[in-house]
Amino acid sequence: MPRQLLLDDLPDLARGAALLGAGGGGDPYIGLLLVTAELERGATITLLDPDEVADDALVVASAFMGAPTVVIEKIPGGDEPVMALRKLELHLGRTADAIIPMECGGLNSMIPLLVAARTGLPIVDGDGMGRAFPELQMETFGVYGVAGSPIAICNERGHVAIIETGHDNASMEWYARAVTVRMGGVAYIAEYPMTGTQVKQTAIHGTLSLALELGRVIRTAHEQHRNPFTALVECLAGTIYRFGHSLLEGKVTDVERQSADGFVRGTARIATFDGLRTVELTFQNEHLMARSGDRLLAVAPDLITVLDAETAFPITTEALRYGQRVRVFVIGTPEIMRTPEALEVFGPRAFGLDEEWTPVEQLVALT
Amino acid sequence: MPRQLLLDDLPDLARGAALLGAGGGGDPYIGLLLVTAELERGATITLLDPDEVADDALVVASAFMGAPTVVIEKIPGGDEPVMALRKLELHLGRTADAIIPMECGGLNSMIPLLVAARTGLPIVDGDGMGRAFPELQMETFGVYGVAGSPIAICNERGHVAIIETGHDNASMEWYARAVTVRMGGVAYIAEYPMTGTQVKQTAIHGTLSLALELGRVIRTAHEQHRNPFTALVECLAGTIYRFGHSLLEGKVTDVERQSADGFVRGTARIATFDGLRTVELTFQNEHLMARSGDRLLAVAPDLITVLDAETAFPITTEALRYGQRVRVFVIGTPEIMRTPEALEVFGPRAFGLDEEWTPVEQLVALT
Repeated sequence: MPRQLLLDDLPDLARGAALLGAGGGGDPYIGLLLVTAELERGATITLLDPDEVADDALVVASAFMGAPTVVIEKIPGGDEPVMALRKLELHLGRTADAIIPMECGGLNSMIPLLVAARTGLPIVDGDGMGRAFPELQMETFGVYGVAGSPIAICNERGHVAIIETGHDNASMEWYARAVTVRMGGVAYIAEYPMTGTQVKQTAIHGTLSLALELGRVIRTAHEQHRNPFTALVECLAGTIYRFGHSLLEGKVTDVERQSADGFVRGTARIATFDGLRTVELTFQNEHLMARSGDRLLAVAPDLITVLDAETAFPITTEALRYGQRVRVFVIGTPEIMRTPEALEVFGPRAFGLDEEWTPVEQLVALT
Repeated sequence: MPRQLLLDDLPDLARGAALLGAGGGGDPYIGLLLVTAELERGATITLLDPDEVADDALVVASAFMGAPTVVIEKIPGGDEPVMALRKLELHLGRTADAIIPMECGGLNSMIPLLVAARTGLPIVDGDGMGRAFPELQMETFGVYGVAGSPIAICNERGHVAIIETGHDNASMEWYARAVTVRMGGVAYIAEYPMTGTQVKQTAIHGTLSLALELGRVIRTAHEQHRNPFTALVECLAGTIYRFGHSLLEGKVTDVERQSADGFVRGTARIATFDGLRTVELTFQNEHLMARSGDRLLAVAPDLITVLDAETAFPITTEALRYGQRVRVFVIGTPEIMRTPEALEVFGPRAFGLDEEWTPVEQLVALT
């Protein structure tokens, strides 16, 4: 049944979405402020299950794109993602019936909520990545047949680009990234216009309410002096993600990070406090691979996250700092993201990694 | 009075337009073949004086954009510029009544003719640069108040980008260039949608028929064993360009050329046969500056051209080769391109050159 998102839900939702963002999707803080302001001024946000969306409804995915390192310096005014939606509607000659998040992520769960609050459109409880990924073709919408374009891209100066590449979603990403870089490194998009039927078939269902639940688990564990990592493992076991596991607790000893070509790329090293074990993370906006020396610990599309060692609050890749005490926590990806066609689009090879994808629960069992 | 362009006009027009292209605007050969094929299959091309365009007509500028070095390797199929027009029309919700060339240039006078031939739309006898320039904001349309966007950009794969930046034509160029680079270094555009009134006020009038005349002068001088350079000087004296002058005859002794960021940039050195005098040319798609040691000989927006020493056929910047025997020939730019607002957009500073603009006829008088 459709239900309203409440003001009190937002911090939990942002926190849980940042967890599922696997280090990417942007820091939740700015987005949380923007959506909070909307609800405080009386706006409402209606959450719809994918099954509640009419088959012939027009649903549009909403997000920011660009390097998360830039979005914390060039913060959104709030009009940009709504303008992207309106420009896409004009181009399509049809108004949207609902919004869906492009991905899970701190900021990228808040941006579509902001659009929903400002326009009054309902938001679909789901997304197109089941986590965050760095590129626009890496969406289950596209994996299962939805054309990503036309896409509308806007910035804070009211500049607009609309790109059409038919079903060639990788080319859409290629052009959109170039425009985003020249818009200053971050832009706001409306993309993957699709029917309600397509949403039901291609979205990862229930990720907004799952984010809300995960965010709540982290907060309440903290308040109840329970171990939040144990609580997360228990919570995930009952979901489509099924599997959560703490790989290592330690200190960030090294971060190498570069913002270029519209992405933030780099590596981070985390060592146990006794210095005997280390994990090296590779990221492109999101964490893509965790290794310990020659040994693969986890690789995309499975989720690798870095959480505060005390609170289990997620730390995004652009916020990683030397000396942070953290846990590396991995999460299994849903089945719909593990099919051969899905792995072709966002498996290790899609990121230029040589590894074969092996389910993280198997890799963990080997250790 | 409207008149038809004939098959026999095309080679002269292409040659004359390449002359006015000031080294840029693309090699005429490919475009000439494409338009010839259209006329041979029975298409017609109607040329309209700007004054013959209805005040409320919708006129759209047509061109290729990108590095001329790329267009000779990645030749157009012919559908791309028509598709750009159609996509812009769809975006505007209105069909065009006429086409106008963006600039003078070998290929860039042929591309709008190709669109006219394929669509049956008339072509306006004029353009927005009075020569060729490397960037899209460098058009008299924009100098005198027309918004360059929305612009539609297409490539041979049917990919489309539409960009809106209001009256900020420099930002339009900035985004369009990024897309063009990712489309493979060359793309086809429809831009500066404007009214007939705006065409009358902002276009350089009569440049297609002037190109035709100049191309004919070059050809007939050659056939009549007259000096083609003298013939060009005489012909230009009676036009809005007023001034033509041979700076130097000699041999190309050095060409440095780089294709990057969607442009071809470089320098060329031409030395007299006795080696006593040299001219150094600086170009960005088009020739921008001619110097001899410390002395400025000509600078944009005045036209600097390199012509074959025997035939006076223009040589575009991407076709310059060591050992070619050439004349460096300069042409005064029309008054409408010499106003303070015009010089701000395409005077020396706009290209990062430190020179003050001085009319080429004054610079020549000083020598």
